[in-house]
Amino acid sequence: MELLKQRILKDGKNLGGGILKVDSFVNHQVDSLLMDACGKEFSQLFAHLSATRVLTAEISGIAPALATAMYLKLPVVYARKTKPITMPDQVYLTVAPSHTKGRMVELIVSPEYLTKGERVLIIDDFLASGSTILGLVRLARTAGAEVVGIGALIEKSFEGGREALRSLGVQVESLVCIRSMDNGEIIFCD
Amino acid sequence: MELLKQRILKDGKNLGGGILKVDSFVNHQVDSLLMDACGKEFSQLFAHLSATRVLTAEISGIAPALATAMYLKLPVVYARKTKPITMPDQVYLTVAPSHTKGRMVELIVSPEYLTKGERVLIIDDFLASGSTILGLVRLARTAGAEVVGIGALIEKSFEGGREALRSLGVQVESLVCIRSMDNGEIIFCD
Repeated sequence: MELLKQRILKDGKNLGGGILKVDSFVNHQVDSLLMDACGKEFSQLFAHLSATRVLTAEISGIAPALATAMYLKLPVVYARKTKPITMPDQVYLTVAPSHTKGRMVELIVSPEYLTKGERVLIIDDFLASGSTILGLVRLARTAGAEVVGIGALIEKSFEGGREALRSLGVQVESLVCIRSMDNGEIIFCD
Repeated sequence: MELLKQRILKDGKNLGGGILKVDSFVNHQVDSLLMDACGKEFSQLFAHLSATRVLTAEISGIAPALATAMYLKLPVVYARKTKPITMPDQVYLTVAPSHTKGRMVELIVSPEYLTKGERVLIIDDFLASGSTILGLVRLARTAGAEVVGIGALIEKSFEGGREALRSLGVQVESLVCIRSMDNGEIIFCD
């Protein structure tokens, strides 16, 4: 997606160690119109899947997932990383390693909002190693739901996430793909 | 706002102790079309303020703030509760008591995204005691920005937040106001 690519070139910062700082338009500060355009793009890429729910992980997945869900007219569920007091005691819970936090994080969904027979579209900000997204897939499957598509704003192909997701056999889309961040550069896949 | 009020009556749960569970449509699961309608409503209520930025607090403020910002065509900044590794060392930070967490939480904004001269519209999911919103006001003022309006999806008037905000002298709007949650009931202000 050219709009997002140009924005990464303009405002993205390669912090080294494979970390791309996009907090002026994706997380912390969100460019609402860019996010709207990304949601529209995802909705077109996944329109044919007849998804019944969009699933993401808090915090930075919420904006792209909500923008997508608005176009698809679907509810969004965001997996919590800590269990709020309003959640029942029986929950779906998995753990996934967090690249940016350097530790395992919990992903928790209430059984009230992820149920058998749902067709789940997973949307997140990054596809890096794929570990967060695989965590969401485990939650969906535990609930008896089917994951029908996976979308990420930005793929870092050098971290192997796409290979990690291949065996799922579902459509995986990223709006921008980065193949190298070596030597302070940002090199796109194509 | 009638749509939100009806939804609270249908799906909101009074858990006692002043806690309203709305995680089937506001947080955890988000009704994307309801959130879109709430964003549109806020955009109309605050259109005359010439805000330059929408400010909220993660996590559950993100959805209503983004929906509002899409209509106003403004960037959203969400205050972080933990400092990510992509944030500079010098930040604006304040602490505010969290009603639902029963402890103090940090609210952190990067000086890159909140600057002198900005006209800030604060949007959050709840206006209860007002402590989170007052924290956001302190962050904005520390940055030299002006808070021009405050909006919340749901006001719990019995917790006194509106009085706490009165001295700010800015427009405060809630889409739904609840005046009592005693005895398991949900009684609206009007």
